[in-house]
Order: sequence, then structure tokens, then C-alpha cells
Amino acid sequence: MTTRTGHTDAIAASRVIGTDVYNSAGDQIGTIEDVMLEKTSNGIMFAVIGFGGFLGLGEKYHAVPWAVLDYDPDRGGYVVPFTKDQLQAAPSYSINELTADDGQRARDASFAYYNVAPYWH
Amino acid sequence: MTTRTGHTDAIAASRVIGTDVYNSAGDQIGTIEDVMLEKTSNGIMFAVIGFGGFLGLGEKYHAVPWAVLDYDPDRGGYVVPFTKDQLQAAPSYSINELTADDGQRARDASFAYYNVAPYWH
Repeated sequence: MTTRTGHTDAIAASRVIGTDVYNSAGDQIGTIEDVMLEKTSNGIMFAVIGFGGFLGLGEKYHAVPWAVLDYDPDRGGYVVPFTKDQLQAAPSYSINELTADDGQRARDASFAYYNVAPYWH
Repeated sequence: MTTRTGHTDAIAASRVIGTDVYNSAGDQIGTIEDVMLEKTSNGIMFAVIGFGGFLGLGEKYHAVPWAVLDYDPDRGGYVVPFTKDQLQAAPSYSINELTADDGQRARDASFAYYNVAPYWH
């Protein structure tokens, strides 16, 4: 996903967290709750998207590959190239489940579901 | 920096931000202010360490390669294998300078100063 010149842009994690996320139809479907990082390597495992829930009770989160988030300056949020149905059918996790098996279960399921080539191979 | 089995651990960016940082002598030398991410690729560019300053005025930040941060559960913070002198002499930046040239200037200077092999080659 780097540009032809190998150029990349920088974004601070604190600016990513809290940003709205829209689906391909332009509906706001959630918010970036967090970004999961590898502790002992240099990769971004996935973005954590929250879809609501009352005061965090029973809230479920989706793990979405970082590469599919496309920032739209007009909306001031990220657009993911998925429909509402695709997102609703995606694997979801409690906050604890996201880091179960060191995050690899959610990461692997997410990359498989959204059909994104693993960055770790 | 992965383990022999290719295994890695997950850590949420929100948990990293605000964590104390200690030098090799065990002195607390700052706090993780942020984590700089690549927008269009999958890498963690560097950790942003703040060293104080009054109400953020004139505060300078260091860009430190993610790989050199070693979490010490006893201290509840990250230990970097550098002396106080090494850290004081390291390149430092205002918050705006950190993302100048899309973060690549701070990233490249940081990896060179701390002698860490670039992850992006």
C-alpha cells in the first residue's frame, strides 16, 4: 500500500482513535476504538472498530485490517469498502477476546474475512 | 523481534500511550506520548516520547524505534537501552516537526541515531 515512490504518510495513533468509520454506502457504522499493535515486531495488527452498545456493556468490536481504512477528508472519517451486511456478518469480539491468543485469532479471522493479504508472511 | 516461533503479542495503542519510559540506569526519563503509524502501509514508524516541558510549551519529543522499547512489568513501564546522555543528545522535535516530511525525517534520524536496522527496507 505504499505509493510508487515508497513514500508513506505519518498519522499519530491518538488522532486515529475516536475517528468515525463509514461503510461503502456512506453510512456511519462505528468509530475507531483502538489500534492493535505487535509488541515484539513492527506491524499494525488491525484497527478495532466499535459499533455501539450501552455504556460499553456487551459491546462487540470488529478487527479490521489497517490497509482497508481509507481516510476521506470530506467526511472527516474512514471509509471501508464493505456493505452494512458484510460488516454485520463479520466476526466480532468482546474487548478481551480481541487480545485472546495474543490477538492472532482476531487478526487472522479478520484478514481472511475481508480478503486482505496477510502482511506477516 | 518476533520470537523463534514467529509468535507476537498484541498491545492496544491506547494502553501504550501514557506509559512511563525508563533509561538503562532505571531513571524515569519520560512518557510515551503517542505512536506514529504509517497511513498507507502497515508499519509502526516510531514511538513518540515526551520529556516534560511546562504545559506543553516548548516541549520537545524524541522519536524512538518501536523495537527498542522493552516493557518491564516490575516498573510498569518501558525500558530503553540508552543512557541519559545518549537520550539528551538524540534528535528532538516539536510536535509539528515529528510529522514534517510525512514523518520520514524523524523516523530516519531516529533509526540512525539509535542504530536500529530500518524495518522498511
